[in-house]
Amino acid sequence: MYEPISYILSLGGKRIRPAMVLAAYKLYKKEYSPEVMQVAQAVEMFHNFTLLHDDIMDHSPLRRGQETVHIKWDNATAILSGDLLQIEVYEKLADVGNIEILRLFNKMARELCEGQMNDMRFEQMSMVSNEAYLDMIRQKTAVLLGFSLQAGAILGGASKEESEKLYDLGISIGLSFQLMDDYLDSFGETAKVGKRIGGDIVEKKKTYLWNEMWSRIDAPTQQEIEAVYKKSDIEIIAFIKTKMTESGAKDFTVDLAQDYTAKSLTGLDHFHTTLGDKGYLEEIVKMLSSRES
Amino acid sequence: MYEPISYILSLGGKRIRPAMVLAAYKLYKKEYSPEVMQVAQAVEMFHNFTLLHDDIMDHSPLRRGQETVHIKWDNATAILSGDLLQIEVYEKLADVGNIEILRLFNKMARELCEGQMNDMRFEQMSMVSNEAYLDMIRQKTAVLLGFSLQAGAILGGASKEESEKLYDLGISIGLSFQLMDDYLDSFGETAKVGKRIGGDIVEKKKTYLWNEMWSRIDAPTQQEIEAVYKKSDIEIIAFIKTKMTESGAKDFTVDLAQDYTAKSLTGLDHFHTTLGDKGYLEEIVKMLSSRES
Repeated sequence: MYEPISYILSLGGKRIRPAMVLAAYKLYKKEYSPEVMQVAQAVEMFHNFTLLHDDIMDHSPLRRGQETVHIKWDNATAILSGDLLQIEVYEKLADVGNIEILRLFNKMARELCEGQMNDMRFEQMSMVSNEAYLDMIRQKTAVLLGFSLQAGAILGGASKEESEKLYDLGISIGLSFQLMDDYLDSFGETAKVGKRIGGDIVEKKKTYLWNEMWSRIDAPTQQEIEAVYKKSDIEIIAFIKTKMTESGAKDFTVDLAQDYTAKSLTGLDHFHTTLGDKGYLEEIVKMLSSRES
Repeated sequence: MYEPISYILSLGGKRIRPAMVLAAYKLYKKEYSPEVMQVAQAVEMFHNFTLLHDDIMDHSPLRRGQETVHIKWDNATAILSGDLLQIEVYEKLADVGNIEILRLFNKMARELCEGQMNDMRFEQMSMVSNEAYLDMIRQKTAVLLGFSLQAGAILGGASKEESEKLYDLGISIGLSFQLMDDYLDSFGETAKVGKRIGGDIVEKKKTYLWNEMWSRIDAPTQQEIEAVYKKSDIEIIAFIKTKMTESGAKDFTVDLAQDYTAKSLTGLDHFHTTLGDKGYLEEIVKMLSSRES
């Protein structure tokens, strides 16, 4: 029963979320406490719980280049392993023993579920506004990064005001992160990203990149796009990428992601910590903004 | 998004679990506190979360005579609604703000997941020992009843020893409850039970009743049973019920369920509460043992 859980946790990933818990804690304290280590583990486990269930819902065959749990085993195993992983998350949070963190976690988890619901709902829609899309990725990706920073800060002894500022900073990082994720899905290099490039384009996913392009092109070009979807995947991807570039949607999306990153770094500038160290968190923000995978 | 949750909660059910939380509390206190009401709601919501996910895993089309959520909507909706319901459970528990209850809840939830895993595993096996079966229903059904009593008692102000005794009492009630459930699935009346009688038999489910019968019959009868499974459902059900009765397995199972009930009532006899009232809990135990649905 515990094998699928070990399996998904062993697939790796960037471990950004625990790194953010620890980096926020480092703003205030030098040595990690057992509690902050538990929250760091909890956010990574929770992230993997969402992957287990999302991969079933999205019918994804691969995760980090390996078979997903519902393919390697079956749906029932993936559902139940996810449920168990979620309980293990709450075991960690009970060990931390901080009711405020538990409440913030629940609020975040609820928003994340709503984000997944909206993501699936958007697939049925022909057009999604950029505002709605940004709100969806805020829920689906950014709130967990916000929680990671906020919880690390609270355990480090941050004031309420500071911990809330760090939450907002996590939201900016998360929005930048997801926009870059969408960008790399279309414009990254397969060898670096570790998956087939153009998946979102083939699935006609209503990403920011897609919506921005769609709103910038004229009706004849929109018809050309509809027509190209009768052709091969390679032709579809090449054509759409050209339109995303020519229309300016590509640059606009990358710029927006960079704006969010700049906002994060400026936000961090205003933090005057005496005991702690800002270097870790700055490093993470910079690493995420310049990543190619 | 919240519609499937309202739907499953509206399907009714006996609400045994919240009743047990409140009845254990009543052993110690006269007036319900907001915390005990929240735990009562949490256990019923958690029970419904398990139903949502179990019904997908077990491919069940009906629940309480109505379409299950994964049929009425789809798998993705049932998975996500379950996840959200689980988060709402932990929101209630955060409101209660008692870390000990949170820990006990997590321990119970983990065991319940393991029980569901074992239940599915048993379906692939040709024979399950009664010991293994009783342990599986302890995990899948009894631990939640045990938790319900224990949590109600803790909030009422019970000593550690008393709250643990009430947990054990909940386990006995749960084992009796599940054995009667299995019995009614084969020997109940459709009109009262609210579902087709003989479902477990047709699916060759390795219930206590089945295992007990199987261990009591000789090899030629076992072959007869294998042969009857080529016939119609009506013939299968009639034949197996005869064998369950003739072999003494039916009476033995009902006797075992009654033993557990008797054990529960004796356990309750030893409770000497001065402020509280034992009547509620006695009533529940008696009602469950004499139920026909």
